[in-house]
Amino acid sequence: MATSWVPSVTPTTEFSLANLPFGIITTPSDPSPHAAVAIGASVLDLKVLSSHPAFPALFPPLAAHPDVFAQPTLNAFAALGRPVHRQVRAALRDLLSTDTAHPAVLRDAPAAERDRVLLPQSQVHMHLPMQIGDYTDFYAGYHHAYRVGCLFRGPEAALQPNYTHLPVGYHGRASSVVVSGTGIRRPTGQMLLDGEPTTGPSRRLDFELELGCFVARGNRMGEKVGVEEAEECIFGYVLLNDWSARDVQAWEYVPLGPFCAKNFGTTVGAWVVLADALEGFRTRGVQVEGRGEVQGYLREGREEAVFDVRLEVDLTTPEGDTTTISRTNAKHLLWSFPQMIAHHTLGGCPMRTGDLLGSGTISGPGGPEERGSLLEMTEGGKKEVLLYGMDARKFLKDGDTITLRGWCGQDGARVGFGECRGRIYSA
Amino acid sequence: MATSWVPSVTPTTEFSLANLPFGIITTPSDPSPHAAVAIGASVLDLKVLSSHPAFPALFPPLAAHPDVFAQPTLNAFAALGRPVHRQVRAALRDLLSTDTAHPAVLRDAPAAERDRVLLPQSQVHMHLPMQIGDYTDFYAGYHHAYRVGCLFRGPEAALQPNYTHLPVGYHGRASSVVVSGTGIRRPTGQMLLDGEPTTGPSRRLDFELELGCFVARGNRMGEKVGVEEAEECIFGYVLLNDWSARDVQAWEYVPLGPFCAKNFGTTVGAWVVLADALEGFRTRGVQVEGRGEVQGYLREGREEAVFDVRLEVDLTTPEGDTTTISRTNAKHLLWSFPQMIAHHTLGGCPMRTGDLLGSGTISGPGGPEERGSLLEMTEGGKKEVLLYGMDARKFLKDGDTITLRGWCGQDGARVGFGECRGRIYSA
Repeated sequence: MATSWVPSVTPTTEFSLANLPFGIITTPSDPSPHAAVAIGASVLDLKVLSSHPAFPALFPPLAAHPDVFAQPTLNAFAALGRPVHRQVRAALRDLLSTDTAHPAVLRDAPAAERDRVLLPQSQVHMHLPMQIGDYTDFYAGYHHAYRVGCLFRGPEAALQPNYTHLPVGYHGRASSVVVSGTGIRRPTGQMLLDGEPTTGPSRRLDFELELGCFVARGNRMGEKVGVEEAEECIFGYVLLNDWSARDVQAWEYVPLGPFCAKNFGTTVGAWVVLADALEGFRTRGVQVEGRGEVQGYLREGREEAVFDVRLEVDLTTPEGDTTTISRTNAKHLLWSFPQMIAHHTLGGCPMRTGDLLGSGTISGPGGPEERGSLLEMTEGGKKEVLLYGMDARKFLKDGDTITLRGWCGQDGARVGFGECRGRIYSA
Repeated sequence: MATSWVPSVTPTTEFSLANLPFGIITTPSDPSPHAAVAIGASVLDLKVLSSHPAFPALFPPLAAHPDVFAQPTLNAFAALGRPVHRQVRAALRDLLSTDTAHPAVLRDAPAAERDRVLLPQSQVHMHLPMQIGDYTDFYAGYHHAYRVGCLFRGPEAALQPNYTHLPVGYHGRASSVVVSGTGIRRPTGQMLLDGEPTTGPSRRLDFELELGCFVARGNRMGEKVGVEEAEECIFGYVLLNDWSARDVQAWEYVPLGPFCAKNFGTTVGAWVVLADALEGFRTRGVQVEGRGEVQGYLREGREEAVFDVRLEVDLTTPEGDTTTISRTNAKHLLWSFPQMIAHHTLGGCPMRTGDLLGSGTISGPGGPEERGSLLEMTEGGKKEVLLYGMDARKFLKDGDTITLRGWCGQDGARVGFGECRGRIYSA
């Protein structure tokens, strides 16, 4: 297992050499957003690194793209495609590893020079990593879909007939996707109260635990992406919180789906875990008895199509007490991201670099403690979720903070997503 | 009534001095997309005009924005706001009018100079006028919603309970919005055939006649746009064809709304009719008996909240025979665009310059000949629409062209949208 010479890399860090997620930062000395990589409790400033004389030699595929890390988003880098991402990650691992093969340009550099390129995470400010053209939210969390269906239609009709045949999804709102740490204002909306339409702040504000996927390279309009090619379209993954106003949703969603219940804010993590970093953690998704074969365009050559990522949800009260209210796993999906992409593009819908796909809420098959939304945990607001400090919730209060976390791998080689966090402020 | 000295301005042109719609062109001598205005059968090249020494004096609000018409979209111009659009339209009208008050810089210019700035429309190529951040499609066409509801649920439950209380809408796909003239490939999709999920080219391909609205200036996330302020957010209007695969839609749309049935292509007209050009054509929208008052945030101070725009749909067969299959009016809306914007932003969803809102399909209250989709005309595919040349349609055939047209006003001062046209090619 490769170790890093970077002092802040501890055995338990989720930003190990096996990870190297990309993000967009501003620093005390550079207020223009630009690219960085997380390593331990530090960030490697890729814009500063790009100006190093050894850069073209260290990163041959970027020699023709000297400004790719000086951009305010990762789109230009993502658009270079997975073979380039792979080579760049390998070069970065080499650069940061104890057993570097290259001249140890960073490790053995004077401290002052190293401090310019390697900064404490606490000193940088994180920005939305991608310019998002379109955002699509799927509904691939099987246990979530089943349980929410039970609440609305009973167990017999919980899943719609199409559910096991195609990855159900809807178009979301790209303009309201924000980076972790951004405050979320409780939405005002129209809802039904005692049978009467009423306008006011949502009383049933919820989170949704999801995995998000950014597109590296898309397709031309009128062409489709085959399920076997779709893997090459993926840049990387983030945690995603699809904040939801359940009272607004219940009133508005027929017949065209969720709208104002969702478009007031969606939070994504700041660090994009590149697709290659998750390759070692493949596993089988949800198996449904008697399901039969899916349509040909959705048939994947591999069984291990989703990822074994441990997920946690923390709720922090306005008083500062934190309770981990859910522990589950990203494997609880019926559909993989390549299947979502193949379905999305089947009719020729063009995907573009930076497009965001959400998995849908991820919940485990078991009790409230492994569910990915308060709607499920409280069975539609009927039960309470108990918190530390004698507190409890049915839905979110003003001042509450929801923090999503996710990681895979063992100590020394953990691959984590960093926090996906948002605090509710009053309407 | 002001007349123009431009020779191609005939009394019946929809691009009269009262209109002056904006678009994005490339020309034989300039392959970089840039702004233009339509006048008669000509276009005024605004980029060329910007280089005229008199430009800053003719257009004082643009003196600080000398490159605004050299951009590849109208977004920068739109973002300047309606007071600027108003002044620029007035200056353009003056410049192109017979009774120009300004020095007649164009009218009396040498022919060679005039020919550089005033080109035949047939010589220019039109491009998507705006960079669209997000596209939202509403469902405000009352008669369409009622009639489609009857087809699916019968007349008693045709309109969902929320329909008269809020402008129902859903997020569309910005990446597949294309300019008039772009070919549309028949989508392949998953559908139910004889009760079995099947994948293949859509057999029930349809058009939807809509009015589209582009946003000039939006709002910050977490803030709302009041219904009385919303008018100032509007840049202008286009015709919009929300192509729809009805068989795909019927199978996929529960519970999250239309997805692949819509995201293979949406066509918008090339010429944006600025909001001020439609001001003289206000009228009352659909009045529903016993409706009661809407929620406060949707209450408008004026009764004439929609526009009296005559609309037509032509179907041209692969053999070249054209039939006008529908004649209706843009006034058949239950909700105005300011109401849509107020609802859209109620929870704080940010709108950005260039965002596109669709009205929803516009149909009249009467027979098939005033309906805005084949689904309605054929009562769900049960009847045929008769065409010239002994031909008929239930849904669209490969090689069919749908052309939407719309205009208001009398001869000499017509305000029209130009064609919104798309031809179907095979899957």
